Amino acid sequence: MPTLVLIRHGQSAWNLENRFTGWWDVDVTEKGAAEARAAGELMAAKGLDFDQTFTSLQTRAIKTLNLALEAMGRLWLPVEKDWRLNERHYGGLTGLDKAQTAAKHGDEQVHIWRRSFDTPPPPIEAGSEFDLSGDRRYAGIAVPATESLKDTIARVLPYWEGRIAPALKDGQRVLISAHGNSLRALVKHLSHISDDEITGLEIPTGQPIVYELDADLNATDRYYLNER
Amino acid sequence: MPTLVLIRHGQSAWNLENRFTGWWDVDVTEKGAAEARAAGELMAAKGLDFDQTFTSLQTRAIKTLNLALEAMGRLWLPVEKDWRLNERHYGGLTGLDKAQTAAKHGDEQVHIWRRSFDTPPPPIEAGSEFDLSGDRRYAGIAVPATESLKDTIARVLPYWEGRIAPALKDGQRVLISAHGNSLRALVKHLSHISDDEITGLEIPTGQPIVYELDADLNATDRYYLNER
Repeated sequence: MPTLVLIRHGQSAWNLENRFTGWWDVDVTEKGAAEARAAGELMAAKGLDFDQTFTSLQTRAIKTLNLALEAMGRLWLPVEKDWRLNERHYGGLTGLDKAQTAAKHGDEQVHIWRRSFDTPPPPIEAGSEFDLSGDRRYAGIAVPATESLKDTIARVLPYWEGRIAPALKDGQRVLISAHGNSLRALVKHLSHISDDEITGLEIPTGQPIVYELDADLNATDRYYLNER
Repeated sequence: MPTLVLIRHGQSAWNLENRFTGWWDVDVTEKGAAEARAAGELMAAKGLDFDQTFTSLQTRAIKTLNLALEAMGRLWLPVEKDWRLNERHYGGLTGLDKAQTAAKHGDEQVHIWRRSFDTPPPPIEAGSEFDLSGDRRYAGIAVPATESLKDTIARVLPYWEGRIAPALKDGQRVLISAHGNSLRALVKHLSHISDDEITGLEIPTGQPIVYELDADLNATDRYYLNER
């Protein structure tokens, strides 16, 4: 049966400061790096192994993957990096912490943006500090100015169908290192979670999530590896 | 004009102990990791940048690449890993230090194996401690039992022609992180060095070597980045 493991990057500097990060390229903290190594050690200890790995174009997810693979003695595995696994783009909220956001927009509005399935935050201002539309890593890509979770799903799923599902159907064991919302997109799809419920699903940092799948990639089980 | 930079992995544990390493998967030392980071910082400071990277299936080269890319803020670049960039396979010498090798085979013979272009060391014994023919990273590959430098060149050059040269001709700026002998293979080819001379060419660890190439990939200049 196909093996699929999802892992959200270890703690980042802005997770710690409670700032909206999105596409901004924040590094993992020392704790985040330790979480990544521990995830790799746990996967090796549980006998998990992989043939293909996928990650985003963001340092915190790539580094989490590299540290986990190194801990497994699997740094030599192929790594495919793609922007479609990036975190949800938080638009004009990027860089703001909870207090700043509430002061600027009010608690109720912030709650809507955090928990709504299809309401995006206001777009990021072109040329502002956290605007990445000119970053050459995204050359040739229409960098979003903001995204709802629905928008995020709309670019994650074609990548799943185009690149990840074919690898799994080909018998490859797959590890994906990504972000809270790009992983929500995958979990929603695989576990048939409703639009209303998915926004409340928290994905902890650095915890490998194992999917058992049948040959048609229907999920037969989903669990945190540290609970088995 | 195409940009090509070669870098030999930072100091490994067995570089330090003067043991024949070859395909054995020895990690970099702390000094080796620092060399890799310094190489990345130097490349960034000199304004070098890349579009595509290549490395071997060996931890010391992959980690050197990852650490250099991280220091450049370029961890998101694509990395292609291939066994054909692996170090020369040292056959039955793998794991032996200088003194052990001399005691077993005599100084003169060791000198011949080190410096001969086409004389391979004795083959590694199947099933012995350092035999990697059963390692799943090399599944589907005819793992050599030993290699001369000539043998190494014979598998590096088809990879150059098939994967690296096309990327350069396509206008991509290329960084290769590899090993003393897989890099000798490339330097011999690009700089038209004779069979007799190439075995004496030392490639220092962690020093970016810059090639300036014309559109047909003929070398117009080659230098150590830290000397310009």
